[in-house]
Amino acid sequence: MPDPTATPTPNPLRKSTGRVGLWMVGARGSVATTATLGLAAIAGGHTAPTGCVTASEPFTEAALPGFDEIVVGGHDVTDVSMVARAETLVRDGMVAPQLMEAAREAISRADAQVRPGYTTMMPAGMPAESQQAAAERLAHDITSFRDAHELDHVVVVDLTSTEAVPEAAPEFFDAPALREALADPSRAVLPPSSVTAYAAILAGSPYACFTPSAGMNLPVLMEWATEAGIPVAGQDGKTGQTWLRTILAPAFAARGLKVLSWAGANLLGGGDGATLADPVAVQSKLASKTRGLQSLTGSEVTPLHIDNVPDLGNTKVAWDHVHVEGFLGSRLTLQTTWSAYDSMLAAPLVLDLARLLSLAGGAGHAGPVAALGFFFKDPWSSDTHDFAGQTRELTEWVEEASQLVNSNAHHS
Amino acid sequence: MPDPTATPTPNPLRKSTGRVGLWMVGARGSVATTATLGLAAIAGGHTAPTGCVTASEPFTEAALPGFDEIVVGGHDVTDVSMVARAETLVRDGMVAPQLMEAAREAISRADAQVRPGYTTMMPAGMPAESQQAAAERLAHDITSFRDAHELDHVVVVDLTSTEAVPEAAPEFFDAPALREALADPSRAVLPPSSVTAYAAILAGSPYACFTPSAGMNLPVLMEWATEAGIPVAGQDGKTGQTWLRTILAPAFAARGLKVLSWAGANLLGGGDGATLADPVAVQSKLASKTRGLQSLTGSEVTPLHIDNVPDLGNTKVAWDHVHVEGFLGSRLTLQTTWSAYDSMLAAPLVLDLARLLSLAGGAGHAGPVAALGFFFKDPWSSDTHDFAGQTRELTEWVEEASQLVNSNAHHS
Amino acid sequence: MPDPTATPTPNPLRKSTGRVGLWMVGARGSVATTATLGLAAIAGGHTAPTGCVTASEPFTEAALPGFDEIVVGGHDVTDVSMVARAETLVRDGMVAPQLMEAAREAISRADAQVRPGYTTMMPAGMPAESQQAAAERLAHDITSFRDAHELDHVVVVDLTSTEAVPEAAPEFFDAPALREALADPSRAVLPPSSVTAYAAILAGSPYACFTPSAGMNLPVLMEWATEAGIPVAGQDGKTGQTWLRTILAPAFAARGLKVLSWAGANLLGGGDGATLADPVAVQSKLASKTRGLQSLTGSEVTPLHIDNVPDLGNTKVAWDHVHVEGFLGSRLTLQTTWSAYDSMLAAPLVLDLARLLSLAGGAGHAGPVAALGFFFKDPWSSDTHDFAGQTRELTEWVEEASQLVNSNAHHS
Amino acid sequence: MPDPTATPTPNPLRKSTGRVGLWMVGARGSVATTATLGLAAIAGGHTAPTGCVTASEPFTEAALPGFDEIVVGGHDVTDVSMVARAETLVRDGMVAPQLMEAAREAISRADAQVRPGYTTMMPAGMPAESQQAAAERLAHDITSFRDAHELDHVVVVDLTSTEAVPEAAPEFFDAPALREALADPSRAVLPPSSVTAYAAILAGSPYACFTPSAGMNLPVLMEWATEAGIPVAGQDGKTGQTWLRTILAPAFAARGLKVLSWAGANLLGGGDGATLADPVAVQSKLASKTRGLQSLTGSEVTPLHIDNVPDLGNTKVAWDHVHVEGFLGSRLTLQTTWSAYDSMLAAPLVLDLARLLSLAGGAGHAGPVAALGFFFKDPWSSDTHDFAGQTRELTEWVEEASQLVNSNAHHS
Repeated sequence: MPDPTATPTPNPLRKSTGRVGLWMVGARGSVATTATLGLAAIAGGHTAPTGCVTASEPFTEAALPGFDEIVVGGHDVTDVSMVARAETLVRDGMVAPQLMEAAREAISRADAQVRPGYTTMMPAGMPAESQQAAAERLAHDITSFRDAHELDHVVVVDLTSTEAVPEAAPEFFDAPALREALADPSRAVLPPSSVTAYAAILAGSPYACFTPSAGMNLPVLMEWATEAGIPVAGQDGKTGQTWLRTILAPAFAARGLKVLSWAGANLLGGGDGATLADPVAVQSKLASKTRGLQSLTGSEVTPLHIDNVPDLGNTKVAWDHVHVEGFLGSRLTLQTTWSAYDSMLAAPLVLDLARLLSLAGGAGHAGPVAALGFFFKDPWSSDTHDFAGQTRELTEWVEEASQLVNSNAHHS
Repeated sequence: MPDPTATPTPNPLRKSTGRVGLWMVGARGSVATTATLGLAAIAGGHTAPTGCVTASEPFTEAALPGFDEIVVGGHDVTDVSMVARAETLVRDGMVAPQLMEAAREAISRADAQVRPGYTTMMPAGMPAESQQAAAERLAHDITSFRDAHELDHVVVVDLTSTEAVPEAAPEFFDAPALREALADPSRAVLPPSSVTAYAAILAGSPYACFTPSAGMNLPVLMEWATEAGIPVAGQDGKTGQTWLRTILAPAFAARGLKVLSWAGANLLGGGDGATLADPVAVQSKLASKTRGLQSLTGSEVTPLHIDNVPDLGNTKVAWDHVHVEGFLGSRLTLQTTWSAYDSMLAAPLVLDLARLLSLAGGAGHAGPVAALGFFFKDPWSSDTHDFAGQTRELTEWVEEASQLVNSNAHHS
Repeated sequence: MPDPTATPTPNPLRKSTGRVGLWMVGARGSVATTATLGLAAIAGGHTAPTGCVTASEPFTEAALPGFDEIVVGGHDVTDVSMVARAETLVRDGMVAPQLMEAAREAISRADAQVRPGYTTMMPAGMPAESQQAAAERLAHDITSFRDAHELDHVVVVDLTSTEAVPEAAPEFFDAPALREALADPSRAVLPPSSVTAYAAILAGSPYACFTPSAGMNLPVLMEWATEAGIPVAGQDGKTGQTWLRTILAPAFAARGLKVLSWAGANLLGGGDGATLADPVAVQSKLASKTRGLQSLTGSEVTPLHIDNVPDLGNTKVAWDHVHVEGFLGSRLTLQTTWSAYDSMLAAPLVLDLARLLSLAGGAGHAGPVAALGFFFKDPWSSDTHDFAGQTRELTEWVEEASQLVNSNAHHS
Repeated sequence: MPDPTATPTPNPLRKSTGRVGLWMVGARGSVATTATLGLAAIAGGHTAPTGCVTASEPFTEAALPGFDEIVVGGHDVTDVSMVARAETLVRDGMVAPQLMEAAREAISRADAQVRPGYTTMMPAGMPAESQQAAAERLAHDITSFRDAHELDHVVVVDLTSTEAVPEAAPEFFDAPALREALADPSRAVLPPSSVTAYAAILAGSPYACFTPSAGMNLPVLMEWATEAGIPVAGQDGKTGQTWLRTILAPAFAARGLKVLSWAGANLLGGGDGATLADPVAVQSKLASKTRGLQSLTGSEVTPLHIDNVPDLGNTKVAWDHVHVEGFLGSRLTLQTTWSAYDSMLAAPLVLDLARLLSLAGGAGHAGPVAALGFFFKDPWSSDTHDFAGQTRELTEWVEEASQLVNSNAHHS
C-alpha cells in the first residue's frame, strides 16, 4: 500500500526501478539503430510508442522504467556509426527525416558508447586473446557503462546476425571443462554469441537472446546465469510470419479443424537476406521458425525457404498457404501475405525487453523468464507457443512482478 | 462423486443428459442437410467429427449428449427433400458419395420429421392465421416430435436465410402490446424468424439463432425466454472471415500495433450468394460482420461487400486487406484469402450448439448463455469478441455446467 | 531519305515535330503534378524515364518530341499550387526529396502557366457565362500559351476527377441544337469535361480524355473534332487492375480455358478514393473497368467495388479472383493482388500521350486515333482490348506515322 | 487420299490427315490417363474440349485430325493399369464419376495397347540389352501399333517423370561415337528419355518432349530426327506458373516498367511433388522454369522452390511476388496465386500436340517446329517466350501448314 504521507510523484510505480541501460550487441545494425532512434523519438515526445507491447494497457501501471530512463550503449564489430546507419534508413524511406533530426543527437550520444565487439576473426597480428579474457573485456565495457551512467541495471540484448549452428561440444555440458577451454588462448570453444552471453553473466546483467544463434542457450551457461541471479530471456525474436502462425494455429485447433500442411515462402533483402540465403547459417533460423508451429498443429510443416531478394531491402514479404481438413473430410485453405519492414517489427520489442528484464531484475528473478516467451520463436522454459496464451502469461507475470517490486520498494 | 454401487456405464458423463432432439428451421437447406448427413456419418463411425468444437479436448469429458443420441427434425417451407438436397451436395463435389450412401437412410428418416414452416407469404385462399396461432402450431410440431421420440430436450436452431431488418415496432418493447398484436389475424408484427423464436419459447426449447435475422433478439421475446427458463444463444454464426478477423485483431492489439483499416471482399455463390446480393437483406449481415471488428480494433472498418458469384457454388472466398501502423509510423500490411465450403464450416457448429444447449438446459440455465458467444458474430450478453478469450470462456463454462449436471444427476 | 548534305543533328527524327505544349486540365492534381515533376526530372537527367512507354524500344527512333521539348501548362479550379501539391507527395513518401528539389523550379514555372478552369459551380455574384463563352475563354488560354512559347502543338489532356454520367440530351446528337444551347447563358447542357473538350476543338489542339467522364465522347463533339482536323484519344487511362485484366484474359482464351467469373475489390485512398466511393460518380468508372473484360472473356464479370480507404493515400490495392473452367469441367483459380501508387502509373502515360498526340498531329491525323486505345480502358474507334494486340497496333501506327512525319519534313 | 467422287463430308479439311496414333511414354501416369479419359469423353460428346487450344478459333478450320480419329497407346514401366489410375482420379475428386463411366471402355482399350517401357534399372537376371536393341524394341512397338490400327502417323509424346540432368558426354555431339556406344550392351550412354526419343526416330514418328528431361535435346539426336524427316517439338510443357509469367513479363516491358525481382513458391503433392522435391532431379525443371522469364525481363529471377506438400495431391499452388520499378523510382508489387490440378492443365495440351504434330507431319516438316514453342517452357528453335507472340506464331504456322496439307491433298 502506498505511504499516504509521502510526497506524491507523477508515476511512482514506473519510477521504482530507476534508470537502466540497454546494451545492444550489434549496436550499429539496423534493428539496434532503429530502436535507438525510436527510443529517443518516443522519450522526446516526437512520436507515439506504437508497436511497443509495454506502452499500452494492461501494462501502463507496471513497475517499468520510463522510455526516458533508458540509456543506450553496446558492442559492435563495425566502424560504420549508428548515425550513418540511421541516415541509410531515412534514405530508404523507412524513417521520416523529421524523426531522424529529432533523434540525431541521441543517436550520436549512443554511438559514442559503442565498444568493439568480439569476433573469432581477429585482425592478423593481434595477440591471441582467450575467450575468458574476451568475455571479461566485454563485461568490463558493460560495468563501466553502468557505473558511468549510474544505472540500476544494464540489460544486454543480442541482436547480431544468425551464426551457423555450432557442433555440440562436451564443454557445453561440463562446467570445469568449459572453464578450462575458456582460459586457453588457442581455443575458441564458444561461438561469439555465447561469449557475449557469458560476458552478461560476468557483468551481472539481465540478458535477452533475440537471434537464433546459441547465445546463452548452452546448458552450462544457463546454469551459471541462474547461479549468478540474472534473469534471461530467449530466443529468436518472434516478429512477423512466425508470430502470425502462432496466432492462427491455436484457433484452428479450437475449432476442431485439422491442419494438413502449412507451407510458405519468405522474401527478404537487406544484409539479413544475404546471411539467411546461406543454407548453413539459416539452419537454426528455419528450425526455430517451424518448431512452434509443429507443436501447435501436431502436423507436418513443410520447411520454409528464405530467399534473398536484395531489391526488397528491409521489407520482408512472407506468404503462407495453410491446407486444412474440415467437416466430412472437406478442405479449406487460408493464404496469408505479410509485408513489413523487418527492423520496425523487431526494434520496439527490444525496448520492451529492456523494460521487462529490468522489471525481472528488480523482482529478483534468476534464470529464464518463461513469461517472456511471448517475444520469441523458441521460448526458454516454456511450452506455450500459442500467442493468446503467451499474452495472458505475460500479463499475469508483469502484474505479479510489479507487485513484488513495489512491495520491495516500500519495505526498503 | 460417482456412486460406487451403481451399474457401470461406458461413459456416464456423456449419457447424463439423455437423448436430445435437434430441430432445425430451414431443415432442407444446405447447412441443415450437411449437419444431418454429417451427424449420421459420425454416429455411424464412417467419418471423424473434424470441425466439431465439442468433439475434442478439452470437451471429451463434458456432460454432452453423444452424436448417436441426437435425433433430427425441423421446419421448412420447401417441398424439396433433404435427400434431394444431399444429392446435390454430392454432385457438386462437396460430399463424398460413400458418405452419402452411409447416411442416406438417416437423412430420409430426418426428412420425414420435417413439418411446414411459417412464412408471411401464405398461399392464397388460406384462412388468415394469427401469429399466435402460427407459433402455437410450430410449438406443437416441436413438442410432438419430443414426445414421439422420448427426448429430454429439443434444441431449436434457426438456419433460415437472412431476412430484411424489420422496422422497430413499439410491440418489441411492450409485452401486453405484443400479445395483443400476435392474437390479431390481420397483423404480422413479427418477422418470421421471431415467430420461430416465440414457438421455441412456447415449446420450452433451448434455442440458437444462427442467422443475423431478428429471431429471439427482440426485448420482449428475450424476456419471455428467460422467464420460461430456456437457454438461448446467438447470433449469426461466426464461421469464416469474421472468425479469422476476431483471431487476428486482438493479436495486433497485444503487440501495440494500430489497425488503420480492414477492408475486404466476400465472394459467394449458392442460394446464399443471391440472397446476400440484395442490399436490403444483407444489411443485418454486414452490420454483424463488422461490429466485432470495430470493437476489437477501435478503428474504422471499411464496409464489406458480398458479391454473388454463382459459379462458386457453396464455396466462399474472402479476401481481407489489413493496413496497420507500426513503430515510428511505419506501415505493414497483412492480406488473407480464405476459401472454404460455407456449409461445411457451419454444419459442425450446429451440432456443437445442439450438444451445448442441451448441456445448458440440463444445468438449468435460463436466458442468453454468454459463453456460447464463441459461435457468433454478434454474441448475446457478452462483449467478448476476441476468439481466444471466447475459447477460454467456453471451456470454463462447459466445465462448470458439466459439474452442475453431474452433481444434479447424483442427487436425483 | 535523309539529306546527306545537311548538317548532322544528334537525333533528327525526334526533333522533327518541334517543341510542344502539354496542357493538363486538373493541372494541380496529383497525376498532373507528378507528370510535371517527372518530366523535369527526366529532361534534366535526374532520373530515367521508367514507366514511359515511348522511352524505350521500339519507340526510340520514332518522330516524337524529346522530353526536354515539352512545355507544361493547364487549367485548374483550385488555388493550391503544384509546388504545394508536390511537397505533399514528398511528405507522403511517394517522391524522393532530391527529385523534388531538382524539379522545384520547373514545377513553379509550370504552375505560373495554370489558368482558372471551368466549373458549373461558379462563385455567387459572377455574371452568368454561356458555355460557348466559357469554352472560348479556355481555348484562348491554350492558344495564348501556344503563342507565348512558340509551340508547334499544345496537347490537351483531361485529368479531372470523374463526373457523374450526364443524362443523354438531344443536343449531344444535333449540332445546331448544341450550338444554340451553348450560346444560352441560362443553360449548362454540357458537363464540364465536355466544355474542356470543346475548348480543345476551338484551340485546334490534339486532345486526350484520361478520365471516364464524357469529355469529347459525345457524337457532335467527336464530329467537330474530326472536322477541325485534330487527333483525339480516349478514354479513361488503363493504369493498373484493368490493364492486368486485359493482359490475362486473352491468354485464357488462347489456351481454350473458359472464364466463369472475374470478381474483385479495389481499395483506394487519396481524394480519388473519396470521389469514387460516391456511387453516382463511380458509375462511369466501373462501367469502363468491366466493359473490356466482358468483351475479352465473353463471360459475366461480377461488378467491381471501389472502396475509399483513406489511410492508403495514393496507394491503390486491387484484388482479383478469376474462376476458370478447364479440361473435363475441372476448375482453376487465379488470384492477383496489385499494389501501386496510382499517380505513378498514370503520370508517365500522360507524357506518352503528349508525345504521341503530337506525332499524330504532325502526321495530320483527324479524329480518334484507334492505335492509342493502348492507353485506355474504353478505347475510341477500336474493339481491341487485348493488351498484346494493342501493343502491336501501337507499334505499327507509330512506325507509319513517323515515316509520314519524316517524309513530310523532307518535302517541306 | 480423299475420293473426289465421294459424298462431301461436313469438314473435309479435318479429315485430310487421316487417323493418327497418340503414343504416350508414361502412359499409365496421371497426365496420360487424364488425356486418354478426356479424349474418349470429348470424342463421345460427353464433354466439351475446354482447355484444348486447337478446339476453338482460329483453329476450327485447320487440317487437324478429329478427336475421334486419335487412337491411344504407349509405353510404361508400371503394371498398374490406366483404369486403376483413372479410378484414383475419380476418388480424389478430380474427375466426375459419370465421365469415368463414359470413358471406361476406351481407357481399357488404350491400356491394352501399353507395352513395357525402357528403364536403366532392368530386372535382375535379364540378359543385358544394348540401348540400340532397346530403342529398336520400342520402335517396333510403335510401328506395330501403327500398322495394326492403319494409322497415318503415330505421334510420340514423352510424359515421364523428370530425370536427373545427364553429364554431357562426347557421344552427344558425335554421331559415329554415339552409334558405337548404343551398340555396346555394357554401356548406357543415353538417359532413358533419350532412348525414347531415339526410338521415335527409328519409328519415323513425330515426337514431343513434354518433360524437362534430355529426350531429343541432344545434338546428334536432333540431327538424326531432321535427317529422318520427322517433326519434333519441345520442351517441358508450359502449363501453369511459367505460362502466367510469360504472359505478364512482356506486358511490364511494354509499359516501360522494370522488373526488379520475380520470386515465388510452388507447392505440389502427388507423385510429381515427391520427384521434384529431390534437388538433383529438379535441377532441369527449375532451370527451364526461370530461363524464359530471365530472357523476358532481363532481370535476376530469384530461383523458385518446389515443395512437396503431399496432402495437396494433384493440385499445384503457385505464388509469385513481382517487384517492379515504375515512374520516378517508385515501386509496385504484383502477387499472383494460381491453384489448379496439374494434370488437367497438361492433358489437353498433349491432345493439342498430337493433332498439331500430325499436321506438321502431313505438311512434311522435318526437325523442331518453332511455332510449337507455344506449348513449352524451353522452346526449341525459338527465342519467343512471350505468350502473345507465341500465340501469333502458332496461329500463322497452323494456317500455312493447313494450306500446304490441303493443297497436297488436292494435287495428289
